[in-house]
Amino acid sequence: MQPRFSPAIIVHGGAGPIKDDSLAARLDGCKAAALAGWQILQEGGSALDAAEAAVIVLEDNPLFNAGTGSTLNTLGKVEMDAAVMEGNSLRAGAVAAVSGIKNPIKLARRVMDDGRHVMLAGDGALLFAREIGFPQCAPEALIVEREKRRWESVHGTVGCVAFDINGKLAAATSTGGIFNKLPGRVGDSPLIGCGTYANAFGAVSCTGQGEAIMRVVMARDAAQLLQDGIDPVEAARMAVETLQELTGSTAGIILIDRHGRIGHARNTTHMPVCALQMGAPVVAVC
Amino acid sequence: MQPRFSPAIIVHGGAGPIKDDSLAARLDGCKAAALAGWQILQEGGSALDAAEAAVIVLEDNPLFNAGTGSTLNTLGKVEMDAAVMEGNSLRAGAVAAVSGIKNPIKLARRVMDDGRHVMLAGDGALLFAREIGFPQCAPEALIVEREKRRWESVHGTVGCVAFDINGKLAAATSTGGIFNKLPGRVGDSPLIGCGTYANAFGAVSCTGQGEAIMRVVMARDAAQLLQDGIDPVEAARMAVETLQELTGSTAGIILIDRHGRIGHARNTTHMPVCALQMGAPVVAVC
Repeated sequence: MQPRFSPAIIVHGGAGPIKDDSLAARLDGCKAAALAGWQILQEGGSALDAAEAAVIVLEDNPLFNAGTGSTLNTLGKVEMDAAVMEGNSLRAGAVAAVSGIKNPIKLARRVMDDGRHVMLAGDGALLFAREIGFPQCAPEALIVEREKRRWESVHGTVGCVAFDINGKLAAATSTGGIFNKLPGRVGDSPLIGCGTYANAFGAVSCTGQGEAIMRVVMARDAAQLLQDGIDPVEAARMAVETLQELTGSTAGIILIDRHGRIGHARNTTHMPVCALQMGAPVVAVC
Repeated sequence: MQPRFSPAIIVHGGAGPIKDDSLAARLDGCKAAALAGWQILQEGGSALDAAEAAVIVLEDNPLFNAGTGSTLNTLGKVEMDAAVMEGNSLRAGAVAAVSGIKNPIKLARRVMDDGRHVMLAGDGALLFAREIGFPQCAPEALIVEREKRRWESVHGTVGCVAFDINGKLAAATSTGGIFNKLPGRVGDSPLIGCGTYANAFGAVSCTGQGEAIMRVVMARDAAQLLQDGIDPVEAARMAVETLQELTGSTAGIILIDRHGRIGHARNTTHMPVCALQMGAPVVAVC
């Protein structure tokens, strides 16, 4: 089959202040993740598989607040959220407040593939994992030294949106949430429409102050702008502006429209992103 | 202070087939709930307090699938979801997959009032309840005989949207979820933008096939139609139509716009609703 569309992918490594010297390493991490997804797209794989693969790379990189390296809640424990969504089918899967899962994005994908539900939270999600034979790890295995020492609030989340040669869109988002959060806190990342959304018109992943992102249903808002025909670069800027106007909060956003055009924006000081498109240089910025 | 707006309220008792002889009793239950909220509105109380009060009445009525009388999951246990949102402030609170809470909507309100987070799930939500001294009950206390005998899938959820004399809007939704759901399953009800949404332009509560409602972010979609100036009756109809077109699923919706105008629609056989407006007769339909 001839490819009918030029694939595209963009990943982000979380929006917020980056006060240590990890900026270059974070950009490298985003590049590695984007390349992992890009390889799948180039081989004719689906946007869904590409987005999941990119997020797995970010989850496994201890620099990012997702999977290994997730931030700690008030009890000093890791609880993670993740969601994946496919634009053409509107299929979606999400897990919230799960612990002892090395790659929450993989479990979210399994919830989606299972098809009975869209979202599983807490112990129920872990029971589902056990029943489908999904591997669990020691919750402590995901804690890295840096997180034990952290006292700053960070808005780390990782995400990827991808567009495949069949013109399908997908979004994937994964996070350890916010530092010192209450146990059971669910942020925007696993909420379809808030931190993650994909339909026939666009795929979107957000990061930032989750409670504010939820209030404006930011990912769905951005997808609507794309559906209204607004250019992706402008749509990303407008979505961040709306969030700021309505809530006074900060966030970042990445998105791709149904033509494979990429957009990203932030009103934070940093958001490492890496974008890849056919015939275009690798774009990696903070 | 002179009231500047005429209040309005509408409640629903869940969309789906009602095959027993409980139709009249369900309508009576909706009327009692709407009247509880109406009294608050008439005394100058807030839309938020009115919506919460109406949903408490529905949660306490064992006929409805929320609070007492909630449906059972695959383990034969009750797990409930609830959310509340205030339109002018965009403040919101939600709890998901909680058990042993007589009125989940009250706990959702406490999450909102606490203000640190928007959503708490599972054991974390119960830990929060304990820490704020919120009463818990025996999980079994919410199980009624009917639910032990039920083998049909129902789409019971209860909801209320209200408009107060200060022109503020609020939405509240509460549910036991779907029969035989997996433990930890979170439906649309507690998800801001999916089953529950309120902003400056409208307040919306949905009920029906939760996984489909999530995929189209139905409540936010309907609020956008109101923001675009579409009449509430038409906006409700269009939101249900969009859901049906994109997912082939069934649902019901209630909403009020910023002028206090009410709308509701369903593509199910039944959805008991009761609406109250100044100078208008009580409207109660199935």
